[in-house]
Amino acid sequence: MKNLQVKLAQRPKGMAQAGDFLIENSEIPAIDEGQVLIKNHYVSIDPAIRGWMNEGTTYIPGIAIGSVIRAFAVGEIIESKNAQLSVGQYVGGLLGATSYAVSDGTGLDIIDTELGELPLHLGVLGMPGMTSYFGLLDKGKPVAGETVFISGAAGVIGTTVGQIAKIKGCKVVGTAGGKEKCDYLLSIGFDVAIDYKNEDVNLALKEHCPEGISIFFDNVGGEILDVALLNLARGARVVICGAISQYNNHTNIQGPKNYMKIVTARGEIKGIIVFDYLDKYSIAIKDISNWLKNKQLQPKNHVIEGLENFPDALKMLFEGKNFGKLLIKI
Amino acid sequence: MKNLQVKLAQRPKGMAQAGDFLIENSEIPAIDEGQVLIKNHYVSIDPAIRGWMNEGTTYIPGIAIGSVIRAFAVGEIIESKNAQLSVGQYVGGLLGATSYAVSDGTGLDIIDTELGELPLHLGVLGMPGMTSYFGLLDKGKPVAGETVFISGAAGVIGTTVGQIAKIKGCKVVGTAGGKEKCDYLLSIGFDVAIDYKNEDVNLALKEHCPEGISIFFDNVGGEILDVALLNLARGARVVICGAISQYNNHTNIQGPKNYMKIVTARGEIKGIIVFDYLDKYSIAIKDISNWLKNKQLQPKNHVIEGLENFPDALKMLFEGKNFGKLLIKI
Repeated sequence: MKNLQVKLAQRPKGMAQAGDFLIENSEIPAIDEGQVLIKNHYVSIDPAIRGWMNEGTTYIPGIAIGSVIRAFAVGEIIESKNAQLSVGQYVGGLLGATSYAVSDGTGLDIIDTELGELPLHLGVLGMPGMTSYFGLLDKGKPVAGETVFISGAAGVIGTTVGQIAKIKGCKVVGTAGGKEKCDYLLSIGFDVAIDYKNEDVNLALKEHCPEGISIFFDNVGGEILDVALLNLARGARVVICGAISQYNNHTNIQGPKNYMKIVTARGEIKGIIVFDYLDKYSIAIKDISNWLKNKQLQPKNHVIEGLENFPDALKMLFEGKNFGKLLIKI
Repeated sequence: MKNLQVKLAQRPKGMAQAGDFLIENSEIPAIDEGQVLIKNHYVSIDPAIRGWMNEGTTYIPGIAIGSVIRAFAVGEIIESKNAQLSVGQYVGGLLGATSYAVSDGTGLDIIDTELGELPLHLGVLGMPGMTSYFGLLDKGKPVAGETVFISGAAGVIGTTVGQIAKIKGCKVVGTAGGKEKCDYLLSIGFDVAIDYKNEDVNLALKEHCPEGISIFFDNVGGEILDVALLNLARGARVVICGAISQYNNHTNIQGPKNYMKIVTARGEIKGIIVFDYLDKYSIAIKDISNWLKNKQLQPKNHVIEGLENFPDALKMLFEGKNFGKLLIKI
């Protein structure tokens, strides 16, 4: 029994490639007094990982070369020298792309599998769910009857935002690439799904949002942000969650050339940083677990087996090839 | 005695050129019952005029080809067939680039020259003053001790915003082109003036705004907006007032490539549309006229003589060659 780990070999230029990673087997670490040993069950593949592979910003330091890739994971405590934590407990946090992790409990969440099965704690009950909940409800402030437009709608955040917006009585329009994803969006309650690979998104928005977009929840950036800005309702809120179209772009990031439309729409552009809501997660988890029980929220996982497939999985995410919350099962 | 008028000959491509205008002499118009005849004294040269020369948007229709150029002006009533308006009254409004204007009183403001001399009613007591007042105070919401950064700081809006921000106890940093304008900014109370033609604005901001920019009041767009986004304080408000660097740009507008910084700064981008505050102008006028009396607000006019110089004056504005509020004296 070995500890398989995915480490950062070098900083990627553009899309992360296999050579940017080092996949190593090492001994399972021994733990000290106050620590626990965690056997990871699932590692989450999130867009943020690509950012963390860069040198870092004032906002968050980059992953050090040679270190284990930073990633959210959930697992089970298999050894404990910490009085607060017991063997058999499920826990989650930034445990990294590693089969076994050591923790002193800092930043570790105890997972209640009664609220939802283990992998959901990396999705709707984890960071993406919190981002969706607070991004839509606290930043977007939806009002029943308003139109919410979501880019990257078939991802875990997009589907969660869309379903919460429906619960709040909004009309929900999403974009995704390809018929299969668009059909899926309609099946979980989206009113309109625009296939950006095969439709003119601007024309489709004009057709389907005759009163304009009151909330644009943006996971993508680039062209789609520009097109959304052309179709805002008066008083629109643009909530910037991500810009997956630009994350691998180092030299020529595309800013929203239609940004002056926020002025004439009397709108505002703001962002969502999920960590600002740490002290309110319990509120979101209560609502989301209820919605899961009522089937008002239907999550979907895309599970890849084997941590050695981490580099391919990350690439898949940026190529939009995943379908549901992308996870690695160890 | 003739009525000299500046009309739109054709829609400009890029910067408006002499050939886009038609300068005509016509008879002084006769007025009907309910109307007044106004002799214009000053016509205001504003960036918005260039936008109005385009075909128009849903926000406001463009000037029709062959029509008098839309512009703010102030003048005196010299003939009246309207019981509410008397000969000798000073009035202002969108009277156009014309020596004589006819009005039925709609949208006409009666000017009280006790509050400030006539041309000031096109500047700090007019639309630019209202834009500055509500843009800074209602959209920016300055708090004493915060740093306010202003682009296009030597223009009428820039100087007014800067001086009001000082009155409100903020640290005020502005950019303008050239030493003369920068010296002027310091002379009216700006704490720092950055000469963008001769300094690295990003480095200068890092030096002079060690706690970051809490309010960025943007009249310029383009590069300066991108650099400001790199230097935001947490909770920053970016107030978009104009984008003079982009108004003549039809094909390749530069969007803010650093827009994701608004997310990490937990800030927001919004705009100011002065017409939304029509019912509150009287509050602003009261404050501004008091500040004028106390010399806390020092306006500066740049007066060009002769309406036939309208095309050159508009060009001057976009080339940043004016120094103070640009006006034509008829």
